[in-house]
Amino acid sequence: MEKLRNGYLFPEISRLELEHIEKYPNAKLISLGIGDTTEPIPEIIASSMANYAHALSTADGYSGYGPEQGNKALREAIVKAFYKDLQIQDTEVFVSDGAQCDITRLQLLLGSKVTIAVQDPSFPAYIDSSVIIGQAGDEGGSGRYGSIEYMKCGPENNFFPDLATTSRTDVIFFCSPNNPTGHAATREQLELLVKFARDNGSIIIFDSAYSSYVQDDNCPRSIFEIPGSRQVAIEISSFSKFAGFTGVRLGWTVVPDELLYSNGFPVIHDFNRIVSTCFNGASNVAQAGGLACLSSQGFKAVNSLIDYYMENANVLGEALSSVGLQVYGGANAPYIWVHFPGSNSWDVCKHILEKTHIITVPGSGFGPSGEEFLRISAFGHRECILEATARLKTLFL
Amino acid sequence: MEKLRNGYLFPEISRLELEHIEKYPNAKLISLGIGDTTEPIPEIIASSMANYAHALSTADGYSGYGPEQGNKALREAIVKAFYKDLQIQDTEVFVSDGAQCDITRLQLLLGSKVTIAVQDPSFPAYIDSSVIIGQAGDEGGSGRYGSIEYMKCGPENNFFPDLATTSRTDVIFFCSPNNPTGHAATREQLELLVKFARDNGSIIIFDSAYSSYVQDDNCPRSIFEIPGSRQVAIEISSFSKFAGFTGVRLGWTVVPDELLYSNGFPVIHDFNRIVSTCFNGASNVAQAGGLACLSSQGFKAVNSLIDYYMENANVLGEALSSVGLQVYGGANAPYIWVHFPGSNSWDVCKHILEKTHIITVPGSGFGPSGEEFLRISAFGHRECILEATARLKTLFL
Repeated sequence: MEKLRNGYLFPEISRLELEHIEKYPNAKLISLGIGDTTEPIPEIIASSMANYAHALSTADGYSGYGPEQGNKALREAIVKAFYKDLQIQDTEVFVSDGAQCDITRLQLLLGSKVTIAVQDPSFPAYIDSSVIIGQAGDEGGSGRYGSIEYMKCGPENNFFPDLATTSRTDVIFFCSPNNPTGHAATREQLELLVKFARDNGSIIIFDSAYSSYVQDDNCPRSIFEIPGSRQVAIEISSFSKFAGFTGVRLGWTVVPDELLYSNGFPVIHDFNRIVSTCFNGASNVAQAGGLACLSSQGFKAVNSLIDYYMENANVLGEALSSVGLQVYGGANAPYIWVHFPGSNSWDVCKHILEKTHIITVPGSGFGPSGEEFLRISAFGHRECILEATARLKTLFL
Repeated sequence: MEKLRNGYLFPEISRLELEHIEKYPNAKLISLGIGDTTEPIPEIIASSMANYAHALSTADGYSGYGPEQGNKALREAIVKAFYKDLQIQDTEVFVSDGAQCDITRLQLLLGSKVTIAVQDPSFPAYIDSSVIIGQAGDEGGSGRYGSIEYMKCGPENNFFPDLATTSRTDVIFFCSPNNPTGHAATREQLELLVKFARDNGSIIIFDSAYSSYVQDDNCPRSIFEIPGSRQVAIEISSFSKFAGFTGVRLGWTVVPDELLYSNGFPVIHDFNRIVSTCFNGASNVAQAGGLACLSSQGFKAVNSLIDYYMENANVLGEALSSVGLQVYGGANAPYIWVHFPGSNSWDVCKHILEKTHIITVPGSGFGPSGEEFLRISAFGHRECILEATARLKTLFL
């Protein structure tokens, strides 16, 4: 724990926000920071949760412990909605209380002795959980932990690591669409990644929490679209950004039967043991909501929400480009990744906050290669996004 | 993971149950096994969850990520309901998705290098999570892991370890009322435990998940009733058995500010970092339910449920005593601990299942000193408890 020098990124951003509110109590603060959904959950889904919750007060509707792996109907619905024709079985799907929690449970499974690679930049929970479990080695003030392989992903390599110069590790965390850069890996890129993992005997932990935002048919929404992935990949995903369930808490992880340790033992058996020992299942009310999301009406309603946020991303991206900033992401993900060449990203973040009362996230919070960048979230009410756009244009024009 | 020889106890019991149903599809199976609540959640509490869930579909009622530590109103209500006059601050309360999950998060905090002691018998998640994190050492077929201190708690020592012969460890897991024995430690016993921890510089992880079942005023419901405990204890607790939230998933952990590592650093800072990195808060719907449990009407309703289960325990305990069995527990906990001298507890469990179609849990599943015992749960509909009582009396008369 002592090796975790800094606080976790997102609570740090919340603190920055609170300090700013204290300093400017009358300012209209707009948060394009933490990446939290803002639009109400579609009524049909909220009603399903409400009905389920209310029925818990009746003899017929009450239920206690469910299976730690999740309710069978939900596991089946996840397969049908997200893995049709991809050979995934419902028994390979483990329902969770969210992707961040499953990252830690996977780290528990892997233990302290494995080596890991992460995209640089990437969602900070991969590295932080790695430090907590004891895989990371020392961070000698360089911003990099000695035992972690940082796979640089920037505009210069189309946000895909140079695998020829990437060291072999036991595990590769890979997030697509990437948080924070908003880049969705192409089919060709993921084929290279799967080949790399197969050649090296590595396990890919593929984080597809933003997959429902992918618009481009050439960007797979699941690693299991890539032939050969069942022997090398685990996929983590979530209802958080898909259905506005950030507070409701629901996600899932897929561990294919064919994924084996080098001694031939199936990884799924150990993950099942972790889930049943260290977790007691996602809330049954949340699971009822998840099932409603995957009904045909629910699915349609949820996809309207996604369209709404993607229109936000479009508005923000165009505005920032129009004032001459170099903008990435936003086409297949609700995040815009903006380059400020030569800058310190915390300074830019604080400058924007001071001048426009807009919260963003400094790119360096996502890894050393995030320096000079800002992540701007497209989650927000439309009027806030338009207002933020106007303020940013004024600042940068 | 390879050191975890057996499956987790409770899924194993579920499997036993399923096999029995297949074998006897027409038998009326009664489960006094896993210890799952069976009675509906009081209407006032279920309605609060339903209203909260429904409001998520409105602009005013929607909320996304909450604080990882839990909503402030709930943290305050927990303090008021359970820690009145005990100097606990709401900032020391971390709301969770259940005690079992927090056991693992505490193990993450502690890491692989600490030594632990557990009551023998005790809830299996302490040992199993310890094995997963790498503290436990080898289990050479003896049923005991080499690096764990097993503190025998049986009728011969009034279910409290002989501390004079207990080795010093960094951490002591202590569950009261104990699962499985049903024994609630007395004030004098807990004073000895706190003194032992203070003398040794150990941390007590006190599991009070069943504290609301305590009837005896001389049995503290919280370790923080014991003077001097704030420097040595963490308390884990839960809404699961208190309010029938086993499926809803809600609990909490208290880490006092004064609990320090030997280098003087506050443990609460590290636990806060774990919670915000490895967890994203309990479901907001579940938290709304928790708050309703702690309203004056909700609290009263929940306590009626507890009375109901305790009456079950009373019925079961009296019946088993009346046929000459030696019965422990059941007075301050919803578990009866029955002695079958000279027996193998799995054999007794299977014999009872075969003859009466009643599921129980073999004591040896809770540790080597659980051999010769069975845990019988008092969770059940009254008519099932009465039916089970009649069947057991017939078998043992």
